[in-house]
Amino acid sequence: MPVSMNLKLTIEYDGTDYHGWQVQPHGRTIQEILELALGEILRERVRLRASGRTDAGVHAAGQVANFTTSRPVELWRLQRGVNALTPPDIVVREVEQVPESFDARRNARSRLYEYRIWNQPWPSALQRRFSFHVHAPLELAAMKEAIAFLEGEHDFSSFRAAGCDAAHPVRKIYNNTLLREGDLVVYRIEANAFLRHMVRNLVGTLLEVGCGERTPARFSDLLKARDRTLAGPTAPPRGLFLKEVKY
Amino acid sequence: MPVSMNLKLTIEYDGTDYHGWQVQPHGRTIQEILELALGEILRERVRLRASGRTDAGVHAAGQVANFTTSRPVELWRLQRGVNALTPPDIVVREVEQVPESFDARRNARSRLYEYRIWNQPWPSALQRRFSFHVHAPLELAAMKEAIAFLEGEHDFSSFRAAGCDAAHPVRKIYNNTLLREGDLVVYRIEANAFLRHMVRNLVGTLLEVGCGERTPARFSDLLKARDRTLAGPTAPPRGLFLKEVKY
Repeated sequence: MPVSMNLKLTIEYDGTDYHGWQVQPHGRTIQEILELALGEILRERVRLRASGRTDAGVHAAGQVANFTTSRPVELWRLQRGVNALTPPDIVVREVEQVPESFDARRNARSRLYEYRIWNQPWPSALQRRFSFHVHAPLELAAMKEAIAFLEGEHDFSSFRAAGCDAAHPVRKIYNNTLLREGDLVVYRIEANAFLRHMVRNLVGTLLEVGCGERTPARFSDLLKARDRTLAGPTAPPRGLFLKEVKY
Repeated sequence: MPVSMNLKLTIEYDGTDYHGWQVQPHGRTIQEILELALGEILRERVRLRASGRTDAGVHAAGQVANFTTSRPVELWRLQRGVNALTPPDIVVREVEQVPESFDARRNARSRLYEYRIWNQPWPSALQRRFSFHVHAPLELAAMKEAIAFLEGEHDFSSFRAAGCDAAHPVRKIYNNTLLREGDLVVYRIEANAFLRHMVRNLVGTLLEVGCGERTPARFSDLLKARDRTLAGPTAPPRGLFLKEVKY
C-alpha cells in the first residue's frame, strides 16, 4: 500500500481578478485553480484545506493550505509543476511534508493581516492594485489611540459581517500596529482568528477616526456595544493582505 | 493678451500596458493619453516635452514633462481633471507653474532609475508586474565590485542599443548602488543622462556577474571595450522604474 503524505503549501496571490479563495458555483477562485493544477499533476482529485478563506479581491503573501496524497511525487517537482500550470497571479512559494495530523485551519495559532492605505491627495498608479486610496490626511495619533483598545480578547460583533458563520464572535488580538511607510499608512493585526470582514470593518471604522469623524473613545464604545450597525463602512478588499499564518 | 504659463507635471505610471512614453503611429503611449486629457480640459492642442522617453513596459514614479498654455486654469483643477480622464495606471502627482525658460529635458541635471530583481527560486504573484524574476541566487559581492567601475564619466557604447539616436555615448554616473531588500535585489543608478536601453543592458550584464558567468574584472574590460556585441542581454522592462528627475 502506498504511503500517504500530508503536504503543506504556502501560497502567494494577487486576488484582484478572483472571487476569493473558496470554490464557488460561479466565478474563478484561487482554491479551484490550485486544486485543478495539483489534480492534473497527481492525476487524482485534490481537495485543499486552507487556514481560512479570503474574500474576493483580497491578496495573500502567505496563505497556507494542506492536502493528503498517496501518489509518489518529489516536492520540488510538484511545486514547479503547479507554478507552471497556474496563472502568474497565483504562486506556490513552498511545499513541505508535515505530520499526518497537521490541519491548516485547526492548527493555526494566529493569522497576520496587513491593510495598506495610500494616503495622498492624488491616487497612485503603481500601488493601485494593492492599496486603498484615502485622500484626506489621516490623523495617525488618534488612530493609534483607537487601536490600542483592540489588544486582548474581545467580542467583535460590532465588526462582524452579516453572513459570518463563525460559532462565536470572540477573538483574541495579539497585537496591532499602524505605521506610516512612505506615502502609505500600513495597519497590521495579528489574532488567533478573524470574523468575516473583520479587518476591513475595523479599517473602515479606523478611517473615520483618522478623518476626525469618530473619537478614539467612541471607537472603544463601539467595540463594547457589540452592534454592527454602529460601525463604519467595510474598507475595500484591494488593500488587504493575508501576510502569514503561524503554527 | 492672455498670459502664458509654463507648467511642469510630475507623473507616475504603470507601464505594463503601454508602448512606452513617446507618441507612436501604432499602440497606446503615455504621452498620447496625457496630451489628449490635457487637451480636452484646456480645449487646445497640448504637446508635452518630457525629461526623456521610457521604453514599452517601463514604469515611472517621477517622470517629468512640461508644456505651455495661455488658457486660464487653476492648477489643482487641472490635476484633478487629468487624473479623472486618464486610466488609473497613469497619474499626475503634481502640477507646478515654472519659469518660462524651464525645459523638462534640457534642464534635467540627473535621472535616477531603479531596477528590481525578484531573486527567489519561485516567482512572485505580487511583484510580477514590477520586477524581473531571477531564480539563481545572486552573488551580490561580485555585482557590487562590478558596479563600482561605473561611477564617473565613461563611454557607454558597450551598453547602448542599436537604435540609439544620442549624439555621443559619454555619460556621467553620479552614483549606483545594489541592495538586497527582502526578497528583492534593487539596483539604483543616477546619471546626468542615459543612452537607449542603457540601464537594462547594464542590468543584463550585471546579472551575468551575479551568476558567476562573468567576473567583475571582465565587466570592467567590457566597459572599456566600447563594443555592444560583448555585453549581456537586455533585461526586461518590467523591472525598471524612472524614479526621479532632478533639476
